[in-house]
Amino acid sequence: MTHVDNREMHTSRWGDPASATALPEAARGLIELAFGLTETPAVETSVLPEGRFPSEALSELRAFIGDEHVLTDDDSRRRRTRGKSTPDLLKARAGDWSDAPDVVVRPASHDDVQRVLDLAVAHRLAVVPFGGGTAVTGGLVARRDGLAGVISLDLVRMKALRDVDTVSMTATLEPGLRGPEAEALLAEHGLTLGHYPQSFEYASIGGFAATRSSGQSSAGYGRFDALVMALTAATPSGRLDLGTAPANAAGPDLRQLLLGSEGAFGVITSVTVRVRALPEVTAYDGWRWPSFEAGATAMRTLAQSGLVPTVIRLSDESETALNLARPESIGDSNDGGCLMITGFEGTPAAVDLRRVAVTAVLTNLGGTPLGEEPGAAWVHGRFHAPYLRDSLLDVGVLVETLETATFWSNLDRVYADVKAALTGALGDGAIVLCHISHIYETGASLYFTVAAKQADDPLAQWQVAKTAASDAMIDAGATITHHHAVGIDHKPWLEREIGPVGVQVLRAVKASLDPAGVLNPGVLIP
Amino acid sequence: MTHVDNREMHTSRWGDPASATALPEAARGLIELAFGLTETPAVETSVLPEGRFPSEALSELRAFIGDEHVLTDDDSRRRRTRGKSTPDLLKARAGDWSDAPDVVVRPASHDDVQRVLDLAVAHRLAVVPFGGGTAVTGGLVARRDGLAGVISLDLVRMKALRDVDTVSMTATLEPGLRGPEAEALLAEHGLTLGHYPQSFEYASIGGFAATRSSGQSSAGYGRFDALVMALTAATPSGRLDLGTAPANAAGPDLRQLLLGSEGAFGVITSVTVRVRALPEVTAYDGWRWPSFEAGATAMRTLAQSGLVPTVIRLSDESETALNLARPESIGDSNDGGCLMITGFEGTPAAVDLRRVAVTAVLTNLGGTPLGEEPGAAWVHGRFHAPYLRDSLLDVGVLVETLETATFWSNLDRVYADVKAALTGALGDGAIVLCHISHIYETGASLYFTVAAKQADDPLAQWQVAKTAASDAMIDAGATITHHHAVGIDHKPWLEREIGPVGVQVLRAVKASLDPAGVLNPGVLIP
Repeated sequence: MTHVDNREMHTSRWGDPASATALPEAARGLIELAFGLTETPAVETSVLPEGRFPSEALSELRAFIGDEHVLTDDDSRRRRTRGKSTPDLLKARAGDWSDAPDVVVRPASHDDVQRVLDLAVAHRLAVVPFGGGTAVTGGLVARRDGLAGVISLDLVRMKALRDVDTVSMTATLEPGLRGPEAEALLAEHGLTLGHYPQSFEYASIGGFAATRSSGQSSAGYGRFDALVMALTAATPSGRLDLGTAPANAAGPDLRQLLLGSEGAFGVITSVTVRVRALPEVTAYDGWRWPSFEAGATAMRTLAQSGLVPTVIRLSDESETALNLARPESIGDSNDGGCLMITGFEGTPAAVDLRRVAVTAVLTNLGGTPLGEEPGAAWVHGRFHAPYLRDSLLDVGVLVETLETATFWSNLDRVYADVKAALTGALGDGAIVLCHISHIYETGASLYFTVAAKQADDPLAQWQVAKTAASDAMIDAGATITHHHAVGIDHKPWLEREIGPVGVQVLRAVKASLDPAGVLNPGVLIP
Repeated sequence: MTHVDNREMHTSRWGDPASATALPEAARGLIELAFGLTETPAVETSVLPEGRFPSEALSELRAFIGDEHVLTDDDSRRRRTRGKSTPDLLKARAGDWSDAPDVVVRPASHDDVQRVLDLAVAHRLAVVPFGGGTAVTGGLVARRDGLAGVISLDLVRMKALRDVDTVSMTATLEPGLRGPEAEALLAEHGLTLGHYPQSFEYASIGGFAATRSSGQSSAGYGRFDALVMALTAATPSGRLDLGTAPANAAGPDLRQLLLGSEGAFGVITSVTVRVRALPEVTAYDGWRWPSFEAGATAMRTLAQSGLVPTVIRLSDESETALNLARPESIGDSNDGGCLMITGFEGTPAAVDLRRVAVTAVLTNLGGTPLGEEPGAAWVHGRFHAPYLRDSLLDVGVLVETLETATFWSNLDRVYADVKAALTGALGDGAIVLCHISHIYETGASLYFTVAAKQADDPLAQWQVAKTAASDAMIDAGATITHHHAVGIDHKPWLEREIGPVGVQVLRAVKASLDPAGVLNPGVLIP
């Protein structure tokens, strides 16, 4: 069963141009007040560097993949250049396509992928796996040093639901399936994966696995790495086929080495994931807390009581107050405080049971119930923020996000330090918003959204802020990324997080699986 | 805070001689009927091979660890020879101490461990980490090829509770703490780890981590690998310090590479584990099912409804009928069927809520409630089976256990195939019992207990059965071990489970962390 969706994202904006969001008038006024408005349109035409690629390699690729799946035209190359971080968009808007791949290759199977890798080794070509193109940390920007060309390995033809096991509640999915495609195929069997990152509409199954994605419902359904029961990967050293049981003691868990490997160890060609029955009902509640700290304590209490809703998120005072996208959602916004959304999915009985228990805990802890409207508003807009970012970039506002995670006892410090680092770098005029979007028994993630008036060199402006925030995270003992992966943007901090011996291990695995260094060179491994 | 418990286990039996169990008369009669009784006492005296160890290395060790912690006497060496599998016991009973280490070294700190490793590399000495000495797959038997001697690195002095974080609900434990010691230290803070493998009374924290242990309450508390938030390890290449958050996307999860590494990649010198509040109440219920299949389906239903008790186990018809240790626990045993135990721990409210929900599901599915007695009996005897094994070995009965795990849809096949393999190898007179002791949403483990009349060469007799069972597991796509680790006994099957490329990755990591090959040589890595 194959659903091919060839919709490609705009080259210098998020998503589908038809879904683009005009900036609401109220927001426009607010922004003018805060930053001034400077229309900053993207460069209309721009030239790609000429593709450099050995012609024999091209002929070989065409011979076994088929001419129509070996693309060298400008548009195909442009659409697979970098990902969708704000720096990526700024470069695209400036007409900088210097990171364009030379060739786009679309394999149809694991064996096709293996043959492309073999050919890449033979001709010394970089291979950059491409799923949804939604990377935000530079994972699609391969280094060319010493290589003869760059292949973008677009997995768009590998979109099968290969197997459904309704006894074990697992499904085997190919890597090119986008979020909605995977859900549609599973829904035919009454099943769901329940994985909804903000990039859901475009991001792919392979990308979720390769980057250890975490979704908006991961409190209830689990992070993507926790869903993967088995996987196959093609590597220059041969095929990996891992996962014989939900868990075992047959040595180190090598699945966990491929998860998060960002295309640097191999190309994930299928994953077998845990699935659940499609929820019969969903219910979302809004809560107001007097402070971010009080709301965070409530989240911790739930996590440590084993009473975790399917969705739970808490905005800090700034994010709650601004709540740019939908200022109505907190109810009477003059009341201030912090907005929490809790969501429940499942059978009516399970939802009721859990919702009642969570409501009791949150009420006891001092939360004020806000009814269902804030949750409904959040659900409505949950995948829309990247469109809003484009609209803000259009009027000269630099907007970007970054995220981290730490243990509960360290959360206040990390929050304060990262916020101070961002404000310090971008100036007092900058707006720094934060929410907690993923909770565990022992800790939580912090997700920051930053807005500032664009400087003359917005790339350099952001780099200063990003560096300050990243230093603050690592200095405070937090992780450099909870769910955005390492790519090239976080690489300078990885050694400080996992230590020199950790880096040595990554290099050893890389050298073993990819001795020629053709897999996503320059990504992940310091 | 350091609790030093130097109680050592009997050299050729399990545990504390004072706790040894005389075979109940009823069981004795049954055994005589089934197998005949052949008293088979252990050899009284036996000679150790002379320790071969470079004298300069010994002097260096003594200089920095202290004379009293560098032991070369026969008794110390004998007590750290092999583990407690039935083959290990048979060899000990026969007076075979050929695998004795040459020196027992007791480091007090991470830095001590690091210095021992550096010295081992310099003098080409094998280092075998030793915790509780409860290994059952040969993980304490290092290969001597090309090395100048074998150090048993006894972690008995590293027993501190280094840190308690009651906000994050984590605790940092040293590797030498035995199960009861760790629980006692945590209990002073109102906390528990909740990790109760059958070896609990002797097994150590470091061993739990190095072998991916799973306990009798792991349905509720999680497998040990799921409890580890952070760890430190000493390796010949330097220190590893991993774990900045409950979960992250900062590349592959390297914690999962050290967990299950069985001393072959490094010596785990501390783990930071998730802890929970000591349960205020515990409640155990017995259930009877008409068949193993019906009981397994009920377990699957619970797991896939998110209604997992803290403890859940299901004996097959044979194990239920025999129930050697306590024939009273199934109630009127003439009713046959299969015994299930469910256990609940926590606050009274949480226990009630969950117990009521589980009871409703099990009743609906056709389970017959047996009240609290079967659970109480199980709790009473839960750590006692290894003593019973000694008593059976005394009368000429070969007893051993083995275990596996698979996905639910494959469980019936694995159960039938392994049982057939064991019966085929040991003859129709053999008794093969099985229970399901660990469940997940997508699968479960199977734990087999085997008893047969000892042949003239019981080691060879068992090897044939073990090989047949292991082949059956792998042929059926199950894992070679759910919670006993690889050691040397499972090594012949590991490549069939993780593939040649998986083995290549393990070798690459080993070569990177332990280029001289001194860490537990011959263990884990094919």
